[in-house]
Amino acid sequence: MIVEWISEPIKPFNRDMEGRALARQGELTKPPGALGTLEALAVRLAAMQGVERPAVDKAAIAVFAADHGVAAENVSAFPQAVTGEMVKNFARGGAAISVLARTWGARLEVVNLGTVNDPGELPAVVRAWIAPATANLAAEPAMTEQQLAQALQAGRDSVLRAVENGAQIYIGGEMGIANTTAASALGCALLRASPVVLAGPGTGLDHAGVTHKIAVLARALELHAAYLREPMECLRRLGGFEIAALVGAYLTCAQRGLPVLVDGFISTAAALAATRIAPACADWLIYSHGSAEPGHAAVLAALKARPLLDLGMRLGEGSGAAVALPLLRAACALHNGMATFAEAAVSEKL
Amino acid sequence: MIVEWISEPIKPFNRDMEGRALARQGELTKPPGALGTLEALAVRLAAMQGVERPAVDKAAIAVFAADHGVAAENVSAFPQAVTGEMVKNFARGGAAISVLARTWGARLEVVNLGTVNDPGELPAVVRAWIAPATANLAAEPAMTEQQLAQALQAGRDSVLRAVENGAQIYIGGEMGIANTTAASALGCALLRASPVVLAGPGTGLDHAGVTHKIAVLARALELHAAYLREPMECLRRLGGFEIAALVGAYLTCAQRGLPVLVDGFISTAAALAATRIAPACADWLIYSHGSAEPGHAAVLAALKARPLLDLGMRLGEGSGAAVALPLLRAACALHNGMATFAEAAVSEKL
Repeated sequence: MIVEWISEPIKPFNRDMEGRALARQGELTKPPGALGTLEALAVRLAAMQGVERPAVDKAAIAVFAADHGVAAENVSAFPQAVTGEMVKNFARGGAAISVLARTWGARLEVVNLGTVNDPGELPAVVRAWIAPATANLAAEPAMTEQQLAQALQAGRDSVLRAVENGAQIYIGGEMGIANTTAASALGCALLRASPVVLAGPGTGLDHAGVTHKIAVLARALELHAAYLREPMECLRRLGGFEIAALVGAYLTCAQRGLPVLVDGFISTAAALAATRIAPACADWLIYSHGSAEPGHAAVLAALKARPLLDLGMRLGEGSGAAVALPLLRAACALHNGMATFAEAAVSEKL
Repeated sequence: MIVEWISEPIKPFNRDMEGRALARQGELTKPPGALGTLEALAVRLAAMQGVERPAVDKAAIAVFAADHGVAAENVSAFPQAVTGEMVKNFARGGAAISVLARTWGARLEVVNLGTVNDPGELPAVVRAWIAPATANLAAEPAMTEQQLAQALQAGRDSVLRAVENGAQIYIGGEMGIANTTAASALGCALLRASPVVLAGPGTGLDHAGVTHKIAVLARALELHAAYLREPMECLRRLGGFEIAALVGAYLTCAQRGLPVLVDGFISTAAALAATRIAPACADWLIYSHGSAEPGHAAVLAALKARPLLDLGMRLGEGSGAAVALPLLRAACALHNGMATFAEAAVSEKL
């Protein structure tokens, strides 16, 4: 293992509290099962948090920003300068995730891992600088072992800060021009899938752009083909700093017992890598939404994940997960706040 | 027409504000379309509210409770006493919709139209008493013309109170043992569909129970067959007080320009009736969720409605709509609060 903490044990669910929460669901004033997925969510959160009545009022959102060498292959509809520009936009509160964090009262941190257009030190941004960008994964490994370790650690550090602050749920987001290419490459390697299945328009490529992206991905996968047996090596060669940070964050959440609400395509590719590195990590990952990015469905299917929302979003930043946060809050509020049949003196099923 | 106000004109959308909101969506710091359905929602709400920046902070929720004569046919898994018992539970804050209203800061009113088990006057309940229950729709018309008019008026009055209180979005809910039977009957009549398509387990019938419910519905539809050309007459013969109240509420919302978030199967059957009475009403109805009640899909399809959520809920009370409320709030917050490319100095698409 590249860093020792990666192999720390995943926290097991609290099966006692899970059973108590399940029993409580059966006593609330509603037909059994009538709250659908919200019932299972409340019970799962109880098992995760080790309490009969779970809560996700304290939400920690982290957005990891980083640039990608593969942008040199013209695989994005936006210029590379946007990554650094968006770091400033996150910090000033103008981005989608900034607005959602504010609206739901969630704590937002921005972690800059390295951008070609360096916004410099900013008051609301954690600087965890690795390099201005990864190397071009279509020509060489995206990261050195040292860089990969730094990126994983940056994700871990973010989660440790969240735990320190009493977070009850963790959302990891990402920003990085060309990172659907990196996520697609990683997904193809882990699933042994064709780029045709996982490559999509990202921020807005046209048909010719997607065709070119598929060719770049095919070239990259061929180049690295002999070295893609280990998931960590797939991540090093084909991922990105922000993707590796998400992997480190998810693994740390699962080790420390902090539930994760996973965002869209890129976050799910990171979740796939995390579960290949430590399969028990999967228990801790709640999938928030199905992205409009076409490859997302294939990665979700491989994870046997059924996301909560399907709103055709494809922004990243953790925005889909943040939009889904109130569903978890509703699940907890209903579980904790509804009266039982006995308390309300309501007759039960015939 | 049974009551004069039914034929008042439906308010047209503000196309100028719709255009301005659409233009704004194109300027926000995200790839065009990346917020998926949330973008269209914000633009639609702008057109409805006649403002460039819509809001749904002030939400009015009304739950209409009523009993059904058809309960005598043993079509529900719960005893009829539950309707009145749940009115008390709503009033005391123990029901799912009470919890959700509290959690989201929405105004909740409970309207009792008539329950066999009369909870009497309650501080938090509007008493709009029509009768202890409708007549058994499998044996005679569910309502007299006078009762139908009273029920429609109760829905209208609720909306007028919401408008008076400055509501920006309206959610109508319902509670009434056996009301999936009434909603199925109404849906079958309006869609000329078989009970096999629209009948489901409701609060929890088993296979034999659903088979019996289908037979009761078939009998009712045969009995009333000669009188089902007009939607209002379908509603009178096959609906319920709370279903008619929802029809009156939806029509009034569309006349007064208050956006509606429609709940599940029974609410959608009411929405179908409202749009058959006044087709332009459809513009004002936003569908919140797809219910686990199997007939819901058919009614939604007839309305060309694509609901926001699909969480397998089947509780009624307006609970599915209330769970979806934060999605509308997120859509508005993002629309109103995100920075534009110009404001944030972020580079646009290549």
